[in-house]
Order: sequence, then C-alpha cells, then structure tokens
Amino acid sequence: MKKLMTSVAACLLLATTAYAADLNPAELRQQAQELFKPLPSTVPAVKGNKITAEKIALGKALFFDPRMSASGVFSCNSCHNLATGGDDNLETSIGHGWQKGPRNSPTVFNAVFNIAQFWDGRAEDLKAQAKGPVQAGVEMANTPGQVVATLKSMPRYVEWFKAAFPGDADPVTFDNFAMAIEAFEATLITPAPFDSFLNGDDDALTAEARQGLQLFMDKGCASCHAGINVGGEGYYPFGLIEKPGADVLPENDKGRFAVTNTADDSYVFRAAPLRNIALTAPYFHSGKVWGLKQAVAIMGTAQLGEKLEGNDVDLIVAFLESLTGRAPDVTYPVLPAETATTPKPASQIIPVK
Amino acid sequence: MKKLMTSVAACLLLATTAYAADLNPAELRQQAQELFKPLPSTVPAVKGNKITAEKIALGKALFFDPRMSASGVFSCNSCHNLATGGDDNLETSIGHGWQKGPRNSPTVFNAVFNIAQFWDGRAEDLKAQAKGPVQAGVEMANTPGQVVATLKSMPRYVEWFKAAFPGDADPVTFDNFAMAIEAFEATLITPAPFDSFLNGDDDALTAEARQGLQLFMDKGCASCHAGINVGGEGYYPFGLIEKPGADVLPENDKGRFAVTNTADDSYVFRAAPLRNIALTAPYFHSGKVWGLKQAVAIMGTAQLGEKLEGNDVDLIVAFLESLTGRAPDVTYPVLPAETATTPKPASQIIPVK
Repeated sequence: MKKLMTSVAACLLLATTAYAADLNPAELRQQAQELFKPLPSTVPAVKGNKITAEKIALGKALFFDPRMSASGVFSCNSCHNLATGGDDNLETSIGHGWQKGPRNSPTVFNAVFNIAQFWDGRAEDLKAQAKGPVQAGVEMANTPGQVVATLKSMPRYVEWFKAAFPGDADPVTFDNFAMAIEAFEATLITPAPFDSFLNGDDDALTAEARQGLQLFMDKGCASCHAGINVGGEGYYPFGLIEKPGADVLPENDKGRFAVTNTADDSYVFRAAPLRNIALTAPYFHSGKVWGLKQAVAIMGTAQLGEKLEGNDVDLIVAFLESLTGRAPDVTYPVLPAETATTPKPASQIIPVK
Repeated sequence: MKKLMTSVAACLLLATTAYAADLNPAELRQQAQELFKPLPSTVPAVKGNKITAEKIALGKALFFDPRMSASGVFSCNSCHNLATGGDDNLETSIGHGWQKGPRNSPTVFNAVFNIAQFWDGRAEDLKAQAKGPVQAGVEMANTPGQVVATLKSMPRYVEWFKAAFPGDADPVTFDNFAMAIEAFEATLITPAPFDSFLNGDDDALTAEARQGLQLFMDKGCASCHAGINVGGEGYYPFGLIEKPGADVLPENDKGRFAVTNTADDSYVFRAAPLRNIALTAPYFHSGKVWGLKQAVAIMGTAQLGEKLEGNDVDLIVAFLESLTGRAPDVTYPVLPAETATTPKPASQIIPVK
C-alpha cells in the first residue's frame, strides 16, 4: 500500500508539470498509450480456464438462469444486466426476501480484465466471484449443493456440462458452474470510441473528449484509473487527500480492511474500472451519487485535493462518455426444463440480521 | 355460459361413442384438424395495432426493461421469462417488496391467440393486459405517469417511440407503451411437433403422442382445450363435474365471477392454453400442482368425472409434450441509458393488505 501511495503522489507531482500543454491528437494518443490499453479483438485467455465454445454456451445459460437462486427469482443477469450497462442501476441490489445488498453492483462488462473482483478485490478472479452472490443470503441465497442438485435434475444441463468439461468423470460441479460462467463473462467485452482512438483514429473522440482525456491524465486521475479498464488495476484509499462525508463513504464499510485485516487498508477499495461508467449510475461502492459530474467532482476533492472547475468536469465527463462501448450481441438462451426432481423454489423471507 | 356447458356435455357424449377407435395417422390428423389449428408461419395481424418492425423492436426493449417497475427490479420478462417457457415457474410470482401475486403467471408464448388475457379473461387483448402488471401493487407497482416520465427522460426511447408511432404528435404515451409490447409479444410464437403433424408430417409425433392425441380428443379434453392454442378459447368452471380440493382451487378466488359478477361464473376460468405446458409447471391458476401427470389426472376427475388410467395419463402427457415448441431467437436488447431526469427506483416495501 505504501508503495502505491508514493507512486500516486509522484504522479500527482508529474501531473502538475504536464498540465496545460494542449497536445495534438497524435501526441495525445502517444501519451495515452503509455497509460491505457485498447481492448483486444478476441476473447482473452483466462488463467486456469481454457475457454471453449461449449463452456461459453453453458456459461450463458447459467448466467441467465433464475433457478440458480433459492427463490427462482434472481439470475446473475438480475444485478449484472447486459441490457443496462452490465449492472442494475440501483444504489445497492435487491436480493432474496427484498433484502438490500451492502454495496453497489459493479458492471460485468470487461470485468475479466480487473486485477480481482468485488469492490474490495476479495475474489481473485471471475470463477471465484461467481461463487459469491449465488451463496450470499442477501442475494441469491442458495447453496452449492442445491445448485448442483438443480443442475443434475435437468438432463440437458448434464449434457451441456459433459460437452463443456469433456475430461471430467463428474462434470456437474459447483466449480465447473463457476468456470462456465467465467468463460461466458470473458466474452463480455465492449469496444468503445476510446479504443478506436488508441488504435489510431483521431476522429473517434470529439475535441471535448480529447481535452477531457488530457485533463484526466494531467490532473492525475489516471494515476489510479489506468490500464485496459481505465481502473480496476489496483487498490487505493477512498479519501486519499480528503475523506468524503459519511453519506458517500459510510463509516461501517471499511473496504479492503475486511480482506487483509491491515490498518493501512481501511477505506481502501479497488479503483473503479471506468469503461461504460456513463451507463452505470449510481456511483461509488455506496451507490449514493447519481450524477457522473458530481462523482467526478467528488473524486477531485477526495483523491486529488482539488476543486475541479465546472468546465474541467464537463470535459472529463466527455472523455468518460467515450468509454461507453458496444455491448456484444447475445441471443437470449432457451434453458433446460425442470423435471420432477428439480428442487422447488424457496421464497420464504430471511430476516436481515 | 349455459350454451357452453351444453356443448361440453354434447362433446362428452360424442366422445364416448368415438372412443376406442384406433385411427391411423392420416385419419387421426383429419379428426384433429377439425378441432385444432397449426400456428401460422407469419406474425399474426392484431386488431387495432398494425405490427411494424419498429414497434416490435421498441416492444422488445420495453418487455426486457426493469425500469418499467417502480423498484427497477422487475421487467415483463421477470414473470414471463422467454428462457423458461415464457413464465417464471413459480407457484405465483414474486413482485414488489417480495409480495406474492394471487395467481400463477401464464406463458407469454402464443398468448396473442388467446380469446382474452389473464386467467379470468379480464383483459380483452395483449395491449390491455400489458397495462395490468406494471400498475399492480404486488407486481411492478408503477403508475402510467411514472412509466411515461421514465421513458421521456431517455432520448433514445423518445426516438424509438417516434419511429414506432410516426403519425403521433406525442408518441410517448402509456397506450403506445402497451401497443409496442403487444407488437413484440405477437412475434412470440413457438411452432411445435404437433404443428408439423397437423401440417402433414406423420412422423412428427411418436406413436405414444398420437395415442395421447386420440385419447385427448376421445375423452373430451378437447371440448375445452381446442383451437390454435389447444385451449385459451373459452371459459369453463374448474370442477365442472367434481370440485377439486381447496388446496388446488382456493375458495377465495372465484375466477371470472370478479369480472362478470354473474353467479354462473363462480370458479370459472379461461381454459388454459396448453402449448408449452410441459415447460410451465406448476399448474392451474393456483400454481399448486407441480407434476403434469398429476394435473392431467386432476382434470380427468374434475372436468370429465373420470379417473384416468395411469397409462392413459402417460399417453396424454406424451401428446402434451408434442406441444413444446421452438422459442424464437431473441437478441437481448441494449436499453437506453438513464439521464439526470430519470425517476429514481423506489424499493420501499409496501405491506400486503
């Protein structure tokens, strides 16, 4: 953490010197290419999970299947809706028994490129992440055993698991459930105008978006929000310079502290990946801020110690809008039918503790 | 109602005479063609709603948009899920504030061919139906004004409404919202093996399914379950011969009586359309019966006054399985993004009265 903070400070210093230089598109691109990477044109390789067409197809079915929840009401897509930016556009998600989750649902789009998953990075990768919400009492409230029993009760799912995991003697497992979902999610990549710009097209960004990009780098935003996902690559304290109020940064959620149990990690979160940020209000882990301009202004004060000018905020937002990508075409799946042995949905309300 | 019951009685009588004749496929088809109709190969014309590509595209977006509900959690597709037979496979649907709806959610597939919508037929057509759940306190809990405000806050929706309703000065209305959803739903047609059989393919049905079809006609099931949707064409008392127990037919739901306020209509319901019935457990308006065989047996006792043999039940179920159709390919929509003026989701729980 200390090393990261030093490097953030260094970048901020550097930022001050570079600011105000009005670069032409080619120079701007060159500078941007040192900090950001365009999305690849192919599905990325995933550590420990060879991606195949069969696995992707199975994962898509599982992703959209509400019977993976105890109640039969929620699927992965309920809170990571591919129709609305890969999230649910709620402050925090509503789950089993109408309980509210503790943190804002992050987008599934391009999530495969994040350093780790969840706001606090507690899941190493998407296959670890996929096991979380399905078991969380306030989300899908299910158990691995019940998920597997549900899947095994439907012969077509059993066939699909066999096809996706041809080497496995017993392919229908909770691990393979998560692997298949990870495979599908690895395909959820959204190339954006910013990628076209990085790839050489000057006109892909408006003049305002280019100025915004320059500000984004010069002011120091890119110190935390860099790389392929313009964020999602490291952990930083929310309130590096000045802590936001408890309305935005609730005191009882100490972020990564719960993962590492290290005092330095109090109120530390994974820097939000900013692709499609214009589609995924409300903002921050608390989901308390609905306007992107307001969110940018808060970041200025909290992370940079600078009250950003209104025009600068507008320009940065113009840049952020260039990160809105094209969602992949997804044919809505037709799921296997239940049988007599499929566990029945359980909708009883579990009281919030 | 009296006229219908007389015709039911007449058919039952006729059935007894015809029973036991073991017809060859061509004769069986001829008899079936007098009672049933195959699905058309094109989207049907809808009364008072010219179907256009623009209207279908808009309707698809609206159908999948959870922001049409007050909470931002439920879309039409939540309870009429195109992935799982066009319904939600729950006893009764779970809606706003985790409230449970009063009746089992019917499939949206082929619903355009029903005489009227809802179990009690209280909506004349799909455009009238579409206005119901969005306003029902236990379902989407929204208001027409809020739906229109939500739609008008998103410029792309406004464009889509203009394209779908080019003659209208103010196209974004609750009426047009319902018309567009009806247009999309008119495309949700699922041709099945039974259609192939009706269209001349002897081999489209197994020998068991053909025997089941013959039984279905001979025993009198087709007296109520006939026409293009193998049901959905008229209203009949549930318990015509013998009332099922209150577990299956709860006393407090008098069905069509609430619509017509006529004593004759107590416990009268629209005969369930049977296309895709194998995909849409649990059964009946109460959703209390999970097994299709059990449902067929109950129908035998309640409607025909006959305890069906186990083998006859199996054969009838084999026929019913031939009504499982091919769901249309639907590309999952990418929905317009919210703006600053989009009403915020309201997730407060409204207590069940």
